[in-house]
Amino acid sequence: MKLQDIYHALQSDIGVIEEELSRSVQSEHRLLNESSLHLLEAGGKRMRPVFVLLAGQFGEYDIHRLKWVAVPLELIHMATLVHDDVIDDAATRRGRPTVKAKWDNRVAMYTGDYIFARSLTIAAQLREPEVHRVLSRAIVEMCRGEIEQIRDFYNGDQSLLRYFRRIKRKTALLMAISCQLGALVSGADAWVVRKLRLYGYFVGMAFQITDDVLDFIGDEQQLGKPAGSDLRQGNVTLPVIHTLREGSETQQTMIRRYLSTEGTAVSADEVIGIVRQSEGIAFAQQMARRYLDKAMAVLEELPDGKAKESFRLIAEFIGGRTY
Amino acid sequence: MKLQDIYHALQSDIGVIEEELSRSVQSEHRLLNESSLHLLEAGGKRMRPVFVLLAGQFGEYDIHRLKWVAVPLELIHMATLVHDDVIDDAATRRGRPTVKAKWDNRVAMYTGDYIFARSLTIAAQLREPEVHRVLSRAIVEMCRGEIEQIRDFYNGDQSLLRYFRRIKRKTALLMAISCQLGALVSGADAWVVRKLRLYGYFVGMAFQITDDVLDFIGDEQQLGKPAGSDLRQGNVTLPVIHTLREGSETQQTMIRRYLSTEGTAVSADEVIGIVRQSEGIAFAQQMARRYLDKAMAVLEELPDGKAKESFRLIAEFIGGRTY
Repeated sequence: MKLQDIYHALQSDIGVIEEELSRSVQSEHRLLNESSLHLLEAGGKRMRPVFVLLAGQFGEYDIHRLKWVAVPLELIHMATLVHDDVIDDAATRRGRPTVKAKWDNRVAMYTGDYIFARSLTIAAQLREPEVHRVLSRAIVEMCRGEIEQIRDFYNGDQSLLRYFRRIKRKTALLMAISCQLGALVSGADAWVVRKLRLYGYFVGMAFQITDDVLDFIGDEQQLGKPAGSDLRQGNVTLPVIHTLREGSETQQTMIRRYLSTEGTAVSADEVIGIVRQSEGIAFAQQMARRYLDKAMAVLEELPDGKAKESFRLIAEFIGGRTY
Repeated sequence: MKLQDIYHALQSDIGVIEEELSRSVQSEHRLLNESSLHLLEAGGKRMRPVFVLLAGQFGEYDIHRLKWVAVPLELIHMATLVHDDVIDDAATRRGRPTVKAKWDNRVAMYTGDYIFARSLTIAAQLREPEVHRVLSRAIVEMCRGEIEQIRDFYNGDQSLLRYFRRIKRKTALLMAISCQLGALVSGADAWVVRKLRLYGYFVGMAFQITDDVLDFIGDEQQLGKPAGSDLRQGNVTLPVIHTLREGSETQQTMIRRYLSTEGTAVSADEVIGIVRQSEGIAFAQQMARRYLDKAMAVLEELPDGKAKESFRLIAEFIGGRTY
């Protein structure tokens, strides 16, 4: 079984979700278009909906219940993407933002709000209060993660723990609850729901760490952005944190100067080169591997079947992905 | 009975709500402080919680149920205030926003998101799915209102209908559901719930129209901002729309030139002076009056009592307020 096979097997149900996704933003289609967010573009992996559907197979699978969590989860993911772009966008226009640019940003902000709120109205199709609690708490935690990330921009004194907590909130949590809610609304056993949530969490951690590694060593064309974008905007990720602790004195000094002067005393390219050649890369890869091993271990405890096989394949894919 | 008497009678229950409000953002107190939002400042009128409490008196009043809608409603109101400030703030710093300023804006955006989401986790204390549906739909509509407002900045060709729809979404809806939910969670009769929602809607419309009039004719010191702020930032409100339709040819031409050049060909002060002396002011005041009359008429149909008397007083206060 290959990754495509998973998508192939879920094809018609992913179709149901895609349809519901377009419907959910269609009434505002003009707005979304105009704020140029390209939200429903073909490139989306729809990872969260796939997690929901696979987790649903551990209980009584019903696409017409599962879609009421799959769609909100994907919308929440989209809303965070929109908000991530909001102020960045303004920055690329350097200084004097035009009135128009200012509005675009505000429109994008409220569009993000709108999508967040839409996600919750859609989830309201399900009567289980647990679903609402889990979803709204996840958004709360994700916002905390985002705020923490901003506060830790250019901060060279952060612990590994701080980094892990941040990526948990930023990424892993939404994957965890995708598995959890898929199983929950399908009436899977409580212990299965818990294990699946754990699987999603571990895979999510590995996914984000891999993302942070690829930002340094990935192919620019495949990434669709220049290498080291994170560090360029001040986002200090695992390879950097490790080098700041375990790297040579020269490496540490250079990175620290870069961070403390917010990139004015040392060029970003130079520091990115340092991190690329540091052991921080291998260390981060090893941490990602460790989270994947944990995900695999959790899977072992779950009942055998096609869904379990698919989850295993996804974990393997994340371990081996290069873009 | 005077307005203070209403607050006085509700004092201890407003205290319960205040306490819950601080608790709800306390865990992030440092963050909120740092993003300098002054959210819980004493000045807040807590109108939405007051509406909840008064509406609750039409059913089985229980502050420990009512607080789970009063607090979320006030938080939603706060979140919109935070987001309203986000990009405006950047604009006052004219051009080149510092990296720090950029972050502050992002932090404010995510703080708003955080408060939105918190409001929904708090409402999750109540199991009625109706509450969640009403709240999340209201946020959806409010976002639409905000986006519409931004899209209609400097737009001289908008109908009255368009203005009314916008302020309904932006302001009246949240007041309407404050009354609705207060009555709903208290188990008031369905027809009472509907009437109270309608009262809140009418009062909310009058409130916003009055706000828009005061922006032109209010005392700058009492308003805490320069007169005509709305028009200065391109927000075209009822007095302006009326003058654009019914004013003299000179008035219309000047306003149109101001709008079409986004304030570069004609000074804001000049146009504000024109609107002040136009009949748009009296027309808007008359519209506000009409909405208040409708609110009073709805009240008439409700059972007599202290709550009804308080609602009547609030409507009268809105009719007569000068700041």
